[in-house]
Amino acid sequence: ERTDILDDLLPQDLAEQIYRLSKEETIEVFSLLNNEEAALILGEMELEESAKAVALLSPKIAADMLSEMPYDDMTDLLGELDDDIAEGIISYMQKDDQEEVKGLLEYPKDSAGGIMTTEFISFKETITVKEAITKLREVAPSAETVYYLYTVDENDKLAGVVSLRELIVSQDEEVLSEIMRTTVLSVQANTDQEEVAHLVQKYNFLAVPVVDEGNKLLGIITVDDVMDVIEEETTEDILHLVGASEVEGSSLIDATVVSIAKTRLPWLIICLLGGLFSGSIISFFEETIDAVVALAFFMPVIMDMGGNVGAQSSTVFVRGVATGEIPESVMFKYFFKEIKVGILMGIICGITVSIAATLWQGSPLLGFVVGISMVCTVILATTIGTIIPIFFTKRGIDPAVTAGPFVTTIKDVTGLMIYFYIATIFMDKLM
Amino acid sequence: ERTDILDDLLPQDLAEQIYRLSKEETIEVFSLLNNEEAALILGEMELEESAKAVALLSPKIAADMLSEMPYDDMTDLLGELDDDIAEGIISYMQKDDQEEVKGLLEYPKDSAGGIMTTEFISFKETITVKEAITKLREVAPSAETVYYLYTVDENDKLAGVVSLRELIVSQDEEVLSEIMRTTVLSVQANTDQEEVAHLVQKYNFLAVPVVDEGNKLLGIITVDDVMDVIEEETTEDILHLVGASEVEGSSLIDATVVSIAKTRLPWLIICLLGGLFSGSIISFFEETIDAVVALAFFMPVIMDMGGNVGAQSSTVFVRGVATGEIPESVMFKYFFKEIKVGILMGIICGITVSIAATLWQGSPLLGFVVGISMVCTVILATTIGTIIPIFFTKRGIDPAVTAGPFVTTIKDVTGLMIYFYIATIFMDKLM
Ligand SMILES: [Mg+2]
Ligand SMILES: [Mg+2]
Ligand SMILES: [Mg+2]
Ligand SMILES: [Mg+2]
Ligand SMILES: [Mg+2]
Ligand SMILES: [Mg+2]
Ligand SMILES: [Mg+2]
Ligand SMILES: [Mg+2]
Ligand SMILES: [Mg+2]
Ligand SMILES: [Mg+2]
Ligand SMILES: [Mg+2]
Ligand SMILES: [Mg+2]
Ligand SMILES: [Mg+2]
Repeated sequence: ERTDILDDLLPQDLAEQIYRLSKEETIEVFSLLNNEEAALILGEMELEESAKAVALLSPKIAADMLSEMPYDDMTDLLGELDDDIAEGIISYMQKDDQEEVKGLLEYPKDSAGGIMTTEFISFKETITVKEAITKLREVAPSAETVYYLYTVDENDKLAGVVSLRELIVSQDEEVLSEIMRTTVLSVQANTDQEEVAHLVQKYNFLAVPVVDEGNKLLGIITVDDVMDVIEEETTEDILHLVGASEVEGSSLIDATVVSIAKTRLPWLIICLLGGLFSGSIISFFEETIDAVVALAFFMPVIMDMGGNVGAQSSTVFVRGVATGEIPESVMFKYFFKEIKVGILMGIICGITVSIAATLWQGSPLLGFVVGISMVCTVILATTIGTIIPIFFTKRGIDPAVTAGPFVTTIKDVTGLMIYFYIATIFMDKLM
Repeated sequence: ERTDILDDLLPQDLAEQIYRLSKEETIEVFSLLNNEEAALILGEMELEESAKAVALLSPKIAADMLSEMPYDDMTDLLGELDDDIAEGIISYMQKDDQEEVKGLLEYPKDSAGGIMTTEFISFKETITVKEAITKLREVAPSAETVYYLYTVDENDKLAGVVSLRELIVSQDEEVLSEIMRTTVLSVQANTDQEEVAHLVQKYNFLAVPVVDEGNKLLGIITVDDVMDVIEEETTEDILHLVGASEVEGSSLIDATVVSIAKTRLPWLIICLLGGLFSGSIISFFEETIDAVVALAFFMPVIMDMGGNVGAQSSTVFVRGVATGEIPESVMFKYFFKEIKVGILMGIICGITVSIAATLWQGSPLLGFVVGISMVCTVILATTIGTIIPIFFTKRGIDPAVTAGPFVTTIKDVTGLMIYFYIATIFMDKLM
């Protein structure tokens, strides 16, 4: 028997429990909800989860539920379903919904068009505040947000924006064109969603309009969806730092073992080749190791430190570029400071490790060799860790995606070369 | 001569250029702006930058500008200034501003109280929609947002929330208590800002109310500030992954070399000790290396792969927990899948490296030893990379802050032990 589930439960709270249910239970829960409630919950579930749930329902029932969703969420959900299931559901929708959703499905998922909704409010700039408020009351229930009203000129082109705040403090007889702001920032349908997110965050917008080449309003993107974009893009960047990525079309929990391994293996194979290449450097110094086996004991500390320092430099730099803390104009200034940081850290770590090495192996000369190598490796690692992402950024390549593998391999090879080269110079005395 | 700078320039765009100016130019620019404009721009500059700029102005002028800022931004800025400068400015402010700001300065910066503003709109729940709209028009200019109106009962306790959207579609004579939502989520003043951000993102709020223990409304936190919190917390998490952090109180560009090095050195010294400890493992197998120097050639690939696989596992897990993709209830299920991923990747990498080793060194047995070690190291690295952050999470410790150093050291030590242990078993035949 149905109790009023959504009276004491917010849709988001129910939405995050549904993945726990069996197929039968999922069908059962949705049969207890009315279409509006089901739409709310489907809109708040993880996309992969809502697609799985909808696929369990009959296309007719699913179509009724989806018809209550805003077009952006409806499109995302249909885009996540298998094509034949999606088409089956669309065929049961009303004509106008069908057209809207087919239009929206054309845009790439990570473009402004792919995340926008068409339920915006736009009025002629020539109407009065009083008229606008009356109309607003009519259209409010179906609009995605009522807090920004966009105004259009006689050719239906975007002319300005009036916030509801400005509207309610204005006099009834004022005309919208008198109170609207005319410097209205907008994006094109093909703008990358990450750029949209930067815009909304920087200017503190609650929504941003999407226009075509002729400045005709196509849709709006609201701040709640922008927050989801930021989370998604940040996850992408963080995973790229370690050469991993999300499995397309399934959540972490549902992804198969093979599909997860596939996202990580390419970078691991590159790393494997890099590691073998580093090893081949060592083979050039075979005689040196053969003569002084203790040199091998300090390979891990040299390699680890190079790796960590390089990761610190490139991570701090890449994040600084992503948040705008390091604007392009000061990149080289930043680079030189980073090298100074490397020199300071290198000297401190070099002294520490040379004392440790001297005490452990009882050889001040070995301590000296290890210490000098550490200084050089740390300085080099900060340099490489910064210059490689700068290089990518300057060429317009996202450093978050690409810097990791290169930094690791180059710092390994150079670190070991420095170490064994210096050791070889002093070999006679080390033996 | 002053042109109307902010007519064609949004405050955010001017704000992000000011750091380029000299001290004299900064003073000059602010002298051209009126107090409202200056307040807008100060509110949009990076906090470290706005504090530097304000410190250049006379306390009287600064006080006039700050008085035009919303209280949250005013508090943040004063909290960033040196105490004596802040007190000087506060002494020139009006009594009511002084009291508000002193109250807000009491809260920790990264708590709900530290990011809230007191310019919210609250009405008695007993007034009508018509009365509310009239009052709203009066208070709108000084409110932080007009889109949520909070209602209070006769004891001034938070009773409900009415969105402006709901207000304008309601009938004039309806009473607020009839149309308000009574399940209103709120936070306490000492709630961590990260928790506030999760709440706003999950429920798509434009603002969230902050209350005291008695449910009395203290302030609100708006979505634009929540976006800044998310950026700040994400940066913190990303930098912690590599044992770095931001320099307290200065931007990346302005931080001194010494202060940057200080944020990174603690983790580097731990890493250095870990590396030496790994090296001491090798020293136990000195005879093995002495007998088969070629074993040293494969140390880099074993160590690098262990490091990368471990970093992948812990990064994917930590991010999954942060975004809620891995809820606590499925952590162990996830762990077992991760191990399966490790086994699959281990076998593939093991076969690859054993073929490479055999071809390079012409010894199938050496290839076998390296391959088996690779399989074990990769599986172990995924296990350690996941179990350590799970352990921290289960104890309520943020895994983003702590997992990195432990994972690196443990996987190094175990990886090398496995490698040399297996090599020693087959030593007779390897020579
Ligand atoms: Mg879409
Ligand atoms: Mg902002
Ligand atoms: Mg939406
Ligand atoms: Mg959404
Ligand atoms: Mg990206
Ligand atoms: Mg992207
Ligand atoms: Mg913080
Ligand atoms: Mg504050
Ligand atoms: Mg925090
Ligand atoms: Mg949301
Ligand atoms: Mg604010
Ligand atoms: Mg702000
Ligand atoms: Mg945090």
